[in-house]
Amino acid sequence: MRFELATRYGDYDTKGHVNNAVFLTYFEMARARAWIEALEGNADFPFILAEATVQYRSQARIGDPLEIEITTTEVRTKAWVWSYVIRDPRDGRVVAEGRTVQVAYDYEGHRTIPIPADIAAKLLDWLGEHI
Amino acid sequence: MRFELATRYGDYDTKGHVNNAVFLTYFEMARARAWIEALEGNADFPFILAEATVQYRSQARIGDPLEIEITTTEVRTKAWVWSYVIRDPRDGRVVAEGRTVQVAYDYEGHRTIPIPADIAAKLLDWLGEHI
Amino acid sequence: MRFELATRYGDYDTKGHVNNAVFLTYFEMARARAWIEALEGNADFPFILAEATVQYRSQARIGDPLEIEITTTEVRTKAWVWSYVIRDPRDGRVVAEGRTVQVAYDYEGHRTIPIPADIAAKLLDWLGEHI
Amino acid sequence: MRFELATRYGDYDTKGHVNNAVFLTYFEMARARAWIEALEGNADFPFILAEATVQYRSQARIGDPLEIEITTTEVRTKAWVWSYVIRDPRDGRVVAEGRTVQVAYDYEGHRTIPIPADIAAKLLDWLGEHI
Repeated sequence: MRFELATRYGDYDTKGHVNNAVFLTYFEMARARAWIEALEGNADFPFILAEATVQYRSQARIGDPLEIEITTTEVRTKAWVWSYVIRDPRDGRVVAEGRTVQVAYDYEGHRTIPIPADIAAKLLDWLGEHI
Repeated sequence: MRFELATRYGDYDTKGHVNNAVFLTYFEMARARAWIEALEGNADFPFILAEATVQYRSQARIGDPLEIEITTTEVRTKAWVWSYVIRDPRDGRVVAEGRTVQVAYDYEGHRTIPIPADIAAKLLDWLGEHI
Repeated sequence: MRFELATRYGDYDTKGHVNNAVFLTYFEMARARAWIEALEGNADFPFILAEATVQYRSQARIGDPLEIEITTTEVRTKAWVWSYVIRDPRDGRVVAEGRTVQVAYDYEGHRTIPIPADIAAKLLDWLGEHI
Repeated sequence: MRFELATRYGDYDTKGHVNNAVFLTYFEMARARAWIEALEGNADFPFILAEATVQYRSQARIGDPLEIEITTTEVRTKAWVWSYVIRDPRDGRVVAEGRTVQVAYDYEGHRTIPIPADIAAKLLDWLGEHI
């Protein structure tokens, strides 16, 4: 899944580059769309975020258009891993890459659980359509 | 009530000035402290924000220390008005001023109400100690 | 000029409503588009922000689509005033309104100036096309 | 180096937890202080951020005090690695951990360089005083 990022003036720092923390917000924007699309609008995802990583490859300057691609490169019994690439679509230059690890969670029992079968099926269906 | 603002690198825009929207966050930081102090830690304030105004007087540059002062200049039957001044404490230069109007609200009945007497008494007590 | 706002999860506060400070960011998003369109991509606007006001009319809850309309209701010799209305497009409900006052500024001379004639002409042309 | 984090209401999401992206801002707050202290106020650091990682260990709820500790666990010829731990100081519970990799950079030559000797000496001095 790939779409254009709607950047904001406040995203840029004093050097005119996207601030490093904002990339996790961009990842979150992509993830929210993917969850909603894959789980058909059910916004109550039984996952907690366990880890996030960003690799900064090149500067995103004010005025540069940005595009994000989200996919899944790894699925574990208890965890779903989203991967992200942010590019300048004019030349394909990679601005940042990263991944976030989401662990299935039982909010009532306060413990991690295997990804529920129906959720896993929907996510894998979605993934199949986007490869 | 007056205290030093803990600014963040992300508050500054591409020109090295505090972004205009961040001043409402600074006001909110002051208001949160004042509510908590006046209402003795009860964080469930029966108010909704009705209006906010910011006047930008001079630039806050990265590295400039900032101090905020919050006070009340107007109390109405249904509304409590907070006023704010942000200064550079080195020379007293005013960076921004503003006010926010909070209206007492019955969240269950979904309607504005007069400020409850016990809340008003606590706020006025607090105000008396800070003039 | 009217367009859909791309909201972000981080815009919402603990009550599930758009945080009050974020509305100034929404205004800024509209203003940036309008400046760029009116001044034909010249992003070096000789204006400084002098004042901003937001009136909060109803809550914007997570999942509510939001649309912003920007127009000009007042032009002074030295100042250009943008006005904003944010609505839920499903029923036209007004979520917030406001205005920002921009003053023409000579960055080299460090003083306010009358709006330069060529800039004023372009802004008024744009305005004529959007009424 | 360890200090209390000044959180903001806008840091919290709809579940009342610190939003995941904000942790990179907390890391940045710690890093900025450490750089300034180590390099004696010289804010022009010849580094670019290459990578950031956050591990989310437990929830930071609104009202929870938060403390951050920053240290260095790895120094390479061209890179300086900051490590961070965020805790609730009431019981030492770890909320988040992470690290950021900064690479020395020649902004004029647009290339990575070994950490300049004088910068490295100051950083190592600072590190020695904080272990």
